[in-house]
Amino acid sequence: MILQLEHNTEPKDILSLTETIAGLGYKSTHVKTQRENYLICIGNKEIDIRQLGHLPVVKDIHRVSDQYKLVSRKWKTNYTSINLGDDVYIGGKEKTIIAGPCSIESEDQAESIAEHLSQQGIKIMRGGVFKPRSSPYAFRGLGLEGMKLFHNACKKRGIKIITEVMQASQIEELYPYIDIFQVGARNSQNYNLLDALGESDKPVMIKRGISGSIDELLYSAEYVFSAGNEDIILCERGIRTFETSYRNTFDINAIQVLKDKTHLPVLADPSHGVGIRDYVPGIALAAIVAGADGVIYEVHPSPERALSDGQQTLNFQESEALIQKIKVLEKL
Amino acid sequence: MILQLEHNTEPKDILSLTETIAGLGYKSTHVKTQRENYLICIGNKEIDIRQLGHLPVVKDIHRVSDQYKLVSRKWKTNYTSINLGDDVYIGGKEKTIIAGPCSIESEDQAESIAEHLSQQGIKIMRGGVFKPRSSPYAFRGLGLEGMKLFHNACKKRGIKIITEVMQASQIEELYPYIDIFQVGARNSQNYNLLDALGESDKPVMIKRGISGSIDELLYSAEYVFSAGNEDIILCERGIRTFETSYRNTFDINAIQVLKDKTHLPVLADPSHGVGIRDYVPGIALAAIVAGADGVIYEVHPSPERALSDGQQTLNFQESEALIQKIKVLEKL
Amino acid sequence: MILQLEHNTEPKDILSLTETIAGLGYKSTHVKTQRENYLICIGNKEIDIRQLGHLPVVKDIHRVSDQYKLVSRKWKTNYTSINLGDDVYIGGKEKTIIAGPCSIESEDQAESIAEHLSQQGIKIMRGGVFKPRSSPYAFRGLGLEGMKLFHNACKKRGIKIITEVMQASQIEELYPYIDIFQVGARNSQNYNLLDALGESDKPVMIKRGISGSIDELLYSAEYVFSAGNEDIILCERGIRTFETSYRNTFDINAIQVLKDKTHLPVLADPSHGVGIRDYVPGIALAAIVAGADGVIYEVHPSPERALSDGQQTLNFQESEALIQKIKVLEKL
Amino acid sequence: MILQLEHNTEPKDILSLTETIAGLGYKSTHVKTQRENYLICIGNKEIDIRQLGHLPVVKDIHRVSDQYKLVSRKWKTNYTSINLGDDVYIGGKEKTIIAGPCSIESEDQAESIAEHLSQQGIKIMRGGVFKPRSSPYAFRGLGLEGMKLFHNACKKRGIKIITEVMQASQIEELYPYIDIFQVGARNSQNYNLLDALGESDKPVMIKRGISGSIDELLYSAEYVFSAGNEDIILCERGIRTFETSYRNTFDINAIQVLKDKTHLPVLADPSHGVGIRDYVPGIALAAIVAGADGVIYEVHPSPERALSDGQQTLNFQESEALIQKIKVLEKL
Repeated sequence: MILQLEHNTEPKDILSLTETIAGLGYKSTHVKTQRENYLICIGNKEIDIRQLGHLPVVKDIHRVSDQYKLVSRKWKTNYTSINLGDDVYIGGKEKTIIAGPCSIESEDQAESIAEHLSQQGIKIMRGGVFKPRSSPYAFRGLGLEGMKLFHNACKKRGIKIITEVMQASQIEELYPYIDIFQVGARNSQNYNLLDALGESDKPVMIKRGISGSIDELLYSAEYVFSAGNEDIILCERGIRTFETSYRNTFDINAIQVLKDKTHLPVLADPSHGVGIRDYVPGIALAAIVAGADGVIYEVHPSPERALSDGQQTLNFQESEALIQKIKVLEKL
Repeated sequence: MILQLEHNTEPKDILSLTETIAGLGYKSTHVKTQRENYLICIGNKEIDIRQLGHLPVVKDIHRVSDQYKLVSRKWKTNYTSINLGDDVYIGGKEKTIIAGPCSIESEDQAESIAEHLSQQGIKIMRGGVFKPRSSPYAFRGLGLEGMKLFHNACKKRGIKIITEVMQASQIEELYPYIDIFQVGARNSQNYNLLDALGESDKPVMIKRGISGSIDELLYSAEYVFSAGNEDIILCERGIRTFETSYRNTFDINAIQVLKDKTHLPVLADPSHGVGIRDYVPGIALAAIVAGADGVIYEVHPSPERALSDGQQTLNFQESEALIQKIKVLEKL
Repeated sequence: MILQLEHNTEPKDILSLTETIAGLGYKSTHVKTQRENYLICIGNKEIDIRQLGHLPVVKDIHRVSDQYKLVSRKWKTNYTSINLGDDVYIGGKEKTIIAGPCSIESEDQAESIAEHLSQQGIKIMRGGVFKPRSSPYAFRGLGLEGMKLFHNACKKRGIKIITEVMQASQIEELYPYIDIFQVGARNSQNYNLLDALGESDKPVMIKRGISGSIDELLYSAEYVFSAGNEDIILCERGIRTFETSYRNTFDINAIQVLKDKTHLPVLADPSHGVGIRDYVPGIALAAIVAGADGVIYEVHPSPERALSDGQQTLNFQESEALIQKIKVLEKL
Repeated sequence: MILQLEHNTEPKDILSLTETIAGLGYKSTHVKTQRENYLICIGNKEIDIRQLGHLPVVKDIHRVSDQYKLVSRKWKTNYTSINLGDDVYIGGKEKTIIAGPCSIESEDQAESIAEHLSQQGIKIMRGGVFKPRSSPYAFRGLGLEGMKLFHNACKKRGIKIITEVMQASQIEELYPYIDIFQVGARNSQNYNLLDALGESDKPVMIKRGISGSIDELLYSAEYVFSAGNEDIILCERGIRTFETSYRNTFDINAIQVLKDKTHLPVLADPSHGVGIRDYVPGIALAAIVAGADGVIYEVHPSPERALSDGQQTLNFQESEALIQKIKVLEKL
């Protein structure tokens, strides 16, 4: 059960409400986000919600049968659109395209990719500076120095930035340079990180875990929302299965399931979702047709020389061709 | 290595060729299909294929590094189109739409669905009369009586028929009534059945196993081809994964992988691929965009009353809407 | 619901009982096995079973909430022991050991392995003569000729035989030579084959499907039982997962789950369950400790020269060491 | 390639060595642990290692073909035994038993479990105070207050403590109270946490990820080792598969694979590995027989009242029975 409270509700009113709720056998959690005030009430008893509706600070009240609450579409049937400023949105009528390298590697690389995006009218660039790598001896990203190169390349072209944050302590470091925090697949159930991002006022994109269920992804989003941040984007990036002829199995079914279960925007990552360059555009287009709010893919001036993920990265020509096809589909 | 032989090659020439091949350390299998004559040669030695090219009965010679041979695109890069007669093809420029009930249940049901297809211009109807069911106590299909109802409904409307064959002994029984034999997911590695279908001259559609790898599907096709039947269609129908929020995980990646690896047509079964009616059209369209040669889905006048698979079956209105959308996509 | 009927129940009494049952809203299936007479009743209505208990032909009546009925331990809590004659049993106090080659390859090979078993006191030999192989060009077994070699080697030593049957038409061919029919993993949902084996009076061992659920294995057993054959053995042989450092994931959990759910004996196949020779004994012993009724593993005089599965096959020395360890564990 | 260096190697010698190595086309990483000095060299060129063996600071040199290096058994074939002090070891001849509740819930609970362990001669207690829970509204542990209760209960009885650490900032907080840091399945690829634990001098137990491959677990251990901490324990706790009749699929195969690939001790967690109380002892014993160095399981005075994981937790009587059985097996 979700109670939406008046904006100016006083702590004492919340306390009093919590006690009333406790009297009905429900445990409640107060959630204050950048926009609203909620009381999440968990319990099993049958109660007549009309007895709560009159209470002065309660604006609205919603039963939510799902285990996750705030991210559920059972109380908020309209889809959420995330406003990144300068007329850039994720979720809504227009399909979002995010592109960029797996890792920021140099000033030249960052500039040339930002320029490619700018020419194609792409408004958000991805790129890792802190990289989770299976081997401790692999390239782990340029860190904050890379972040600055990335920021410079994007700022002058009016491009928004998304990058991966791997631990709570990086949130503050990255904050001045980025527009969206990305939580990677390996950290999708790193609850301390999710809690910390819930205290930020910048949007958070959460990738589905490598073998994460759809419900687990929604729970991860609930962590961020219930810690105070409503601006959440979900990302399907393929799951681990028995099939070995490609990297991950892009879960095309998940797109529709997520759009049904949650009001949050859902992006598709075809690069990780299939892991083979030639198939990336096909998966991107399929995801759009299946209802994704957009795609996030890897692009690099010379994929074969990329320091990571080159085998699933498009070059500029392939990227341009994909963008054109997405635009054609969007018109349908 | 595949040797294409002259049509009129005599048994003694094949024997002599086999011996020559054996002398080079290769084991060979003669394959005579409805259209061609092949010698499949398996071995590891490096040989100079020019020494074979001159031999009188050898028309052409192809190295194929894949473990499956005849179904590989490594020797036949042009895609195969299956001719069902009356200008109906699977594979080629036009997208194929096959629809029909999970099971044939009655004359009325068969007639009404055939009429729906006829009105929509759909040329092939699916429908089971021998049904593999998890429980021995469940409805197992109407058998040959059902087959006759099905045939009557389609014949008068010029509609082709595909139905599942569960064992070799049914091939002869079903033969007069059908245009395509379907091998179900549970029988996709029933090699005796595949061998027997290889001796038929009617096309065979093989569904991917419930947890079958892409390579296993290609091997199953190789069974049919090497037993003498070139007219094979592959069908992606979802795989079994850990995710429980839908029935199977439709493997959208498999579509492109298959189109890369084999020259055979590839259809998508969105009904089994997701298992939830509302999501079937989205998966169908995604599969088309990803490159499938067509779709095969379940339709029923009253899905909620269907004897099997009702939860994943479209009604006529939904079916019509899907057909219209496929036609729009096809024009792109 | 299962009704156990008197042995000499007349068809007319069954018909009349079926009608009574139908009147209560239940659909019933008559099952006559080599030992008993049952009526399986499927329905959802709440009924007072006492009203059925008085009926003259009804010996006993059991509610079974599982979807599978005759194989459930909900009505038969005592474990089933399969009698192979000559004091050889599967299920019961003693652990069963079955060993033998993947494929019967020659008279010498069959004789030497039978002799090894004989010296070790092993009473049942496995060996394939009809082999399901992924590739149509691979060795598919010696067929009936191999069966005869196999039979000769075992008969003189008083060893029982289990071999795989791939299609209904082989049942009659194999019948004179074998003691147990094996249904392989790829055919575990080949319902026509299961039905046909239900009409045999020889025991049937069903391997779990490559990605078959535990419930599906029980349903497959229900097919055989409900077609008339009570003598069924189940075999856990590893499932397909994402892990690639071995062949299959032996599902040690399944042993206890099966022993809980069904009264049928449960064997473990460590050779396919892990697929790497060095690990086979460890898995065999673990399965015994977890409660398996025995093991079935692959042995060959020279595994490195075996025509199939050599990488997971023990040599005689390893086999002997394993047998000794099983005997030690058995005493605990 | 791993170079073991003299203990007192000076930074300038390491620098000079690194340059020599770079000249051979290898990238090197210096690793200084609580016990040794290593240089890890990554590269593809063939080199004659004898030219490195003479160098004064190099004690020994090992080729390691695995991608992970320090945790590989390719250079250290003797198994590692972790010394916890007071004659308590993990790895070695004796099997380790670790037991305790999922979560520390109260002083009474902690005391009664510690007393149970003490009476059974168990030397290490598990218990969570920071709990990763799918839902943000679930009980997340008593935190540091719980840690103190836990510590008091164990200290007076001479019991060692293992507890989960969820983020780097908790390492310092937990340090005074614990003997082993546990990295949970959801954090098994949280590389920042692994790096930070590498800087600690207390042992670290890493659980396999929920769908983590065996190699990924070894890479995670390599993170800790290469950051300076040699005292690492691995834990198999079940993987996610399609099977739904239990919680996770305990990967019995992984025990032997790990004992082959790494010198680190390997424990089994049967509680999470199957997730159903009745089956926990069977899995524990099977894991011991397959070669695990010990087990870690959940025990609670009243599992049915536990705040988390009660369905897979043993009561004292079941725990005692399991301990007795492990001791019997150990004598074999």
